[in-house]
Amino acid sequence: MKHITSNDLINMQTRFRAQLINSLSGFKSANLIGTTNNLEQTNLAMFSSVFHIGASPALVGFIVRPHTTPRHTLENIQQTKHYTINQVSNHIWPAAHQTSARYTRKQCEFQQTGLNKQFIADICAPFVKESPLKYALMLKEILPLTVNNTLLVIGEVTDIFCQKDIIHNDGYIDIEALGTVAISGLDSYHETQRLSRLSYAKPEQKLQYF
Amino acid sequence: MKHITSNDLINMQTRFRAQLINSLSGFKSANLIGTTNNLEQTNLAMFSSVFHIGASPALVGFIVRPHTTPRHTLENIQQTKHYTINQVSNHIWPAAHQTSARYTRKQCEFQQTGLNKQFIADICAPFVKESPLKYALMLKEILPLTVNNTLLVIGEVTDIFCQKDIIHNDGYIDIEALGTVAISGLDSYHETQRLSRLSYAKPEQKLQYF
Repeated sequence: MKHITSNDLINMQTRFRAQLINSLSGFKSANLIGTTNNLEQTNLAMFSSVFHIGASPALVGFIVRPHTTPRHTLENIQQTKHYTINQVSNHIWPAAHQTSARYTRKQCEFQQTGLNKQFIADICAPFVKESPLKYALMLKEILPLTVNNTLLVIGEVTDIFCQKDIIHNDGYIDIEALGTVAISGLDSYHETQRLSRLSYAKPEQKLQYF
Repeated sequence: MKHITSNDLINMQTRFRAQLINSLSGFKSANLIGTTNNLEQTNLAMFSSVFHIGASPALVGFIVRPHTTPRHTLENIQQTKHYTINQVSNHIWPAAHQTSARYTRKQCEFQQTGLNKQFIADICAPFVKESPLKYALMLKEILPLTVNNTLLVIGEVTDIFCQKDIIHNDGYIDIEALGTVAISGLDSYHETQRLSRLSYAKPEQKLQYF
């Protein structure tokens, strides 16, 4: 086994360390966050840090680095309090990655990448038409993480839009069947193949595969 | 497209909602967290909420639900300030899932599931011998998320242990080659197949696949 120490980490070249550390947490989610500002300029940005916080209420979080990346997504959420999260599928992953280029305020990532903007019902933030599973959120809290000056943005899910016939009887959404991709490190995209679902684990009881 | 509203969510049966909402964020990481208490009673627990917070310093976070699950992991981290995170591979995913059964304090998940305990150097928390990529962390902060009474535990990576020949020249760790698995929902395990890595995105520039 290779052993990398704190000292090795400190002495690493910045980009090397970024690649390395971004691989540690395991596979990450691939999501496009859609926002708009008060002038109705829309924005779309790729995030690999979206994660589940709780089911009741339905809360989802993501991390923003306000000092190193263009903060259009954050500013727009602060202005309008609403945003969308759109799962990235195997049909749109290169276009999704391209949204991370540093476009100006006036350049809309939808136009630049060929992804299609979709407005649904009275939700002010734009969805990605091509995304098979997407939802609208209302901002609940922006929590500063003082350990590294990032922000944890927490939103409550208000409306979910999903391709039909993909929600199982127990509520599980088969995101593999939707073609949702996973990310490793900073830039590697992956399709998935199910090993199995497993029953709820109990002591002294054999797991069921289904 | 199926439309699920806030009202639908409120009226859903609890377990159905848990499955549904847990599918929304996309693929999740699969990690075993190893801890010990001051009496040297070890604990091992499965988490699907481990996520990358930052590379410099190297920070990783995870969410704990202190009021609904046995809090051995949390209590041990509070006592000793040190813990390990071990990526779950395609060789150990059922045993990893089994650690989520409600064992008592005295029942060690290592013994109960057949996973092997490994102590490395002078790190007090136990590693999972079978895990191909694992690291030790020092507790930095436990941040209460008041929106749903959960806790965000943030640790700094101090020592990384990785199978050799798997770290690329640019620092990227090929976790797919390690057999690391991904999770969807609460209980679905997946292997991955790389689509491609993509170059850093810039406006007006074609992405490179590599």
